[in-house]
Amino acid sequence: MSRRIVPLLNRIIIQKAEIPNKTAGGILLPETKDKDTQVGTVIAAGPGAMFENGRTRETIVRQGQSVLLPSYSGQEVDIDNEKFYIYKDTEILAILE
Amino acid sequence: MSRRIVPLLNRIIIQKAEIPNKTAGGILLPETKDKDTQVGTVIAAGPGAMFENGRTRETIVRQGQSVLLPSYSGQEVDIDNEKFYIYKDTEILAILE
Amino acid sequence: MSRRIVPLLNRIIIQKAEIPNKTAGGILLPETKDKDTQVGTVIAAGPGAMFENGRTRETIVRQGQSVLLPSYSGQEVDIDNEKFYIYKDTEILAILE
Amino acid sequence: MSRRIVPLLNRIIIQKAEIPNKTAGGILLPETKDKDTQVGTVIAAGPGAMFENGRTRETIVRQGQSVLLPSYSGQEVDIDNEKFYIYKDTEILAILE
Amino acid sequence: MSRRIVPLLNRIIIQKAEIPNKTAGGILLPETKDKDTQVGTVIAAGPGAMFENGRTRETIVRQGQSVLLPSYSGQEVDIDNEKFYIYKDTEILAILE
Amino acid sequence: MSRRIVPLLNRIIIQKAEIPNKTAGGILLPETKDKDTQVGTVIAAGPGAMFENGRTRETIVRQGQSVLLPSYSGQEVDIDNEKFYIYKDTEILAILE
Amino acid sequence: MSRRIVPLLNRIIIQKAEIPNKTAGGILLPETKDKDTQVGTVIAAGPGAMFENGRTRETIVRQGQSVLLPSYSGQEVDIDNEKFYIYKDTEILAILE
Repeated sequence: MSRRIVPLLNRIIIQKAEIPNKTAGGILLPETKDKDTQVGTVIAAGPGAMFENGRTRETIVRQGQSVLLPSYSGQEVDIDNEKFYIYKDTEILAILE
Repeated sequence: MSRRIVPLLNRIIIQKAEIPNKTAGGILLPETKDKDTQVGTVIAAGPGAMFENGRTRETIVRQGQSVLLPSYSGQEVDIDNEKFYIYKDTEILAILE
Repeated sequence: MSRRIVPLLNRIIIQKAEIPNKTAGGILLPETKDKDTQVGTVIAAGPGAMFENGRTRETIVRQGQSVLLPSYSGQEVDIDNEKFYIYKDTEILAILE
Repeated sequence: MSRRIVPLLNRIIIQKAEIPNKTAGGILLPETKDKDTQVGTVIAAGPGAMFENGRTRETIVRQGQSVLLPSYSGQEVDIDNEKFYIYKDTEILAILE
Repeated sequence: MSRRIVPLLNRIIIQKAEIPNKTAGGILLPETKDKDTQVGTVIAAGPGAMFENGRTRETIVRQGQSVLLPSYSGQEVDIDNEKFYIYKDTEILAILE
Repeated sequence: MSRRIVPLLNRIIIQKAEIPNKTAGGILLPETKDKDTQVGTVIAAGPGAMFENGRTRETIVRQGQSVLLPSYSGQEVDIDNEKFYIYKDTEILAILE
Repeated sequence: MSRRIVPLLNRIIIQKAEIPNKTAGGILLPETKDKDTQVGTVIAAGPGAMFENGRTRETIVRQGQSVLLPSYSGQEVDIDNEKFYIYKDTEILAILE
């Protein structure tokens, strides 16, 4: 990816894991064609959320983390022929350690 | 489950009870095929909820508790060929002691 | 009911009155087949509601009270072959003294 | 009505006026069969509303008042063979003096 | 209108202008049969709005004012064979001076 | 327009620009018949918005300004055979200087 | 564009990138006819957002920045035969550096 993409607010950019039979970490993805993989890696994380009361908070996931994604939601974007997905950090279900 | 899954915010990971004729604790599950079991065990609990005013609160159910689930909602995730469900703690109906 | 069920937050567990021609207290239930009885007894009450500002308040109905239920809403759960219903206390219409 | 019904929060119990050609007070009700009468009497009023900030306020209509009802909304309940309706006080349009 | 009608909260009672070819003040109403007249007079105004924080504010239109009505909304009520409409003051578009 | 129209709260009255081939200022309006012109002039502006916390703020556009309108929304009103549109100031997209 | 357009509040005016085979910065846009390009340049940015509590904040993107747009939303406006799009700054996904 030649250009640097800086997500705004508490958004994060996710690269979804390929749908192998079994990932290195042992997470078996179902081969159901329509089922989208629910695992991805955080490629970039925005600065954080801003609230009406003036408060801000940092994004709750960090670049490099492996995360569990909700089945629906997530904006698809194509960059340099690669598909990425943009979520808000509050949509992410869990971190896979 | 080889990798550790850390739910984010006030989410919890539930393993649903099998649909036996009668559970050890005497909770009889209806055999209606479409009726999903409403009982499960908390496998992992997130740190808690965060609010716009900066306050936080702990998740209100703990790992190991047996809980009563709402009929609908709950995100299904497959991990190591096992089906788990992710809920927010505020969606859980009751604790079964 | 062999296991103790502790409702979470401001939820309550209701056992609906049978649909007799006339209850002891003189409340006549319509025989309309589809009309669900609107009277029930509070079997268990949760601790109370929690708010984002950190405040909490107690559940506004107590175990043992006879209450008037809204026509729709209420989650059905089967426990030991008995049907119970779970409501939030703010959904309950009135107390029958 | 043999049992006392205590509405919860800012709810009120209404007995709708019959649909006569003309009420004592001169309020002519349209004879349209589907048009429900929009006038009723407050049979019982709950203590009042509760807010997340801990404040409470009293119910804004009192037992015995004659009120103008919105066309839709209102929960129907049968008690001792009589039909009553339960509204929140904020749904009531006006008081008829 | 024999009985006095006191609107609750920030509600107002409106009598819609007849649909003449042209009103005294020069406001030409379209003759389209389905188009409801958008001009009316405030017959009665409630005390004002109440907010959760305990604040109140007065109703922003007064009895006797001629006002411009939104195309939709407004509750129709029949009183003494006359049709009136009940709006919240925040729904009123403008005052015609 | 014989009568003075005073918009309530943060509402404004807009007269839409005719759909010429090209406006004086060079804004070319598409001739698509169903496309409504998106340019208009502020004929009158209300005092401003009121909030539950008691705060008020002035309307953010002024009489005489030329503005860019959203494609949908805006209440149509006929006054003296002229068509006007009523918007809330927060719906206006931009000011054309 | 002959007239100056000043977006209101936290709105921004975007000129979408043409749909070339490959942009200078290497961002390959899919040739799918219905897929709208998701990249654009900020032509003008409003002053910022206003909140009920009286607070304001500046618009979070600046004129001249290249940004990643959500697939849906954005108001289309034609100005001097050129198509522009108006977004709120909170709808913009990321900045392309």
